Amino acid sequence: MFSGSLCSAQTAQATIIEDFKASTVNQPGQEYPQVNSQGYARFQIKAPDAKSVVVSLGLGGAKGGTELSKGENGFWTGTTAGPMDEGFHYYHVTVDGGVFNDPGALNFYGSTRWESGIEIPAHDQDFYALKNVPHGHVQQILFPSKSTNTSRRAYVYTPPSYSKEQSKRFPVLYLQHGWGEDETAWSNQGRVNLIMDNLIAEGKIKPFIIVMTYGMTNEIKWGGIASFKIEPFQTVLVDELIPYVDANFRTLANQPNRAMAGLSMGGMETHTITLNKPDVFSQFALLSGGIYTPEEIKDKSKVKLIFISCGSRENPDRVQTAVKGLKEAGFNAVSYVSDQTAHEFQTWRRSIRELAPLLFKD
Amino acid sequence: MFSGSLCSAQTAQATIIEDFKASTVNQPGQEYPQVNSQGYARFQIKAPDAKSVVVSLGLGGAKGGTELSKGENGFWTGTTAGPMDEGFHYYHVTVDGGVFNDPGALNFYGSTRWESGIEIPAHDQDFYALKNVPHGHVQQILFPSKSTNTSRRAYVYTPPSYSKEQSKRFPVLYLQHGWGEDETAWSNQGRVNLIMDNLIAEGKIKPFIIVMTYGMTNEIKWGGIASFKIEPFQTVLVDELIPYVDANFRTLANQPNRAMAGLSMGGMETHTITLNKPDVFSQFALLSGGIYTPEEIKDKSKVKLIFISCGSRENPDRVQTAVKGLKEAGFNAVSYVSDQTAHEFQTWRRSIRELAPLLFKD
Repeated sequence: MFSGSLCSAQTAQATIIEDFKASTVNQPGQEYPQVNSQGYARFQIKAPDAKSVVVSLGLGGAKGGTELSKGENGFWTGTTAGPMDEGFHYYHVTVDGGVFNDPGALNFYGSTRWESGIEIPAHDQDFYALKNVPHGHVQQILFPSKSTNTSRRAYVYTPPSYSKEQSKRFPVLYLQHGWGEDETAWSNQGRVNLIMDNLIAEGKIKPFIIVMTYGMTNEIKWGGIASFKIEPFQTVLVDELIPYVDANFRTLANQPNRAMAGLSMGGMETHTITLNKPDVFSQFALLSGGIYTPEEIKDKSKVKLIFISCGSRENPDRVQTAVKGLKEAGFNAVSYVSDQTAHEFQTWRRSIRELAPLLFKD
Repeated sequence: MFSGSLCSAQTAQATIIEDFKASTVNQPGQEYPQVNSQGYARFQIKAPDAKSVVVSLGLGGAKGGTELSKGENGFWTGTTAGPMDEGFHYYHVTVDGGVFNDPGALNFYGSTRWESGIEIPAHDQDFYALKNVPHGHVQQILFPSKSTNTSRRAYVYTPPSYSKEQSKRFPVLYLQHGWGEDETAWSNQGRVNLIMDNLIAEGKIKPFIIVMTYGMTNEIKWGGIASFKIEPFQTVLVDELIPYVDANFRTLANQPNRAMAGLSMGGMETHTITLNKPDVFSQFALLSGGIYTPEEIKDKSKVKLIFISCGSRENPDRVQTAVKGLKEAGFNAVSYVSDQTAHEFQTWRRSIRELAPLLFKD
């Protein structure tokens, strides 16, 4: 872990390659923030009369705060003290003690607020790039929820062949975000639609539908996870969302063709709901979101696949040991560890790339 | 126009009713900004060490800047000097000379950047409210564009019956945003999907598809509109987007079942493209976006409807005079003036409500 002080940053500067380019998730026309080929990020924020401007990077991308220095032109500029992990990171800017977003960057919902995002180039970024291939659609749906007395929002990815083959039916993956995120996370910062489009174009997977909705149904007050109860969300998902999706999309509406996956808190939800509802889902995936043990699963014959993953900077031993135990107990279990990533979206993008080819095999 | 100074604000305070509530487009769990029943807005921003915090409201909602005052707790608070027009307004916050968004509010793309938004309660807000009615879907599509050598994004509203009646085909409205906005504007700040859902639920309109894409195709450099050329966008719209939509959605793919409308700059685009392509569109609408004259239209028999609207604070005489001239020349022309609104989204939400029942009549 690097110190965030200016002193350290200057010490490190001798090694920084000056090939900085605008981050790919900047707002249109914005030059900053920038990233270089080593994974350093450089920020520039206009605030001519401010006394202090500090950039705070979230979680696994954190190298501490980056204090910016004021230039003659009223712009504050600074470079991270060290390179960041590949992939997407949340961040925000503290200006004179107030927390704001970087006007140069696009915003992404995380930490129960819309935060700035930055994309560090990755050696494997091709798999989530926007390419000249057929693209699926991401549909915003508003489905009726009696249990919460409102219309709730979800996003539905339909593969490119969905709108072409008007009589074909597709299996469905229900995919959950993490704590502090919402139903926009997987297609915005996760780029799951592009990952799917690319895998389908390469013939690596059988096309399926993905449904993403908000998993913090019981309105926990943007604080700890301790007060979270699964029942309200389980009701929304199983009794309201799934029937809506099966009525409004051409799904294969049965247990063998329905999977559930989630990252972090969404993994916790997946774990509980799949065990509670063995006749609803046949394939389960936890991405940085805990493990299954053989003893938890009552009817082994109903489970077609268990996938468990995390980043190498998390607890890969636990994941691998759990999958070993599941295999020994006769389950079709697969582990995946994302190299040199932490509890962040690069881990989960890669996890989806690894999971998708395993789903809905005949 | 009210002065934005603190002095004026204090003078006006005697009349302010203290029934402030969180704006309906705040971020989850955020108490500020607030609005009261008279249309005043109150802002609160944390910035303990700042010297100056000023809120700037955009365009027709502007009552000048609102200077906030610092409290003991590090929060800056202030109320607009006067009531604002009903409906949606863009704004941003200047903190010590730097331009940021309000951390309490959701962001909306306008002025070529993601800006804070605030919603002033309106006497007629029911028509764009989220209600317990069947909801259409808003689909993000990525369509191939050879002329710009990329995949371009559009949003497609499909009515509730689209996913239920799998053999039915629908007419299509191509709907453009204004300068500085993008393809997200009509469904985010415009709430066009909810307006449609409500009109359909009330049986007031024949269901149709709406397609919204980015209209500033030639990448003008976020500055003036003078350098704008229509040809690149016309190619994307007519030669690339329309064929994609007709191939991927169940459309009635012919001129009588295709309309184009746009607000502000999108009206300018609509005007030019509909005149250039009389065999593509049969119904035209300009929302605060200029007029048609009878002399411009070569083949009157091909035009089924011309709709021209604006806010009462714009230039309603010009709109009404133009429609009178079109009617006298034998066109099916309709004008609409939104009461007590300016060049803002409340004008355009109402315009869509008035336009939709007129479209695609047999």
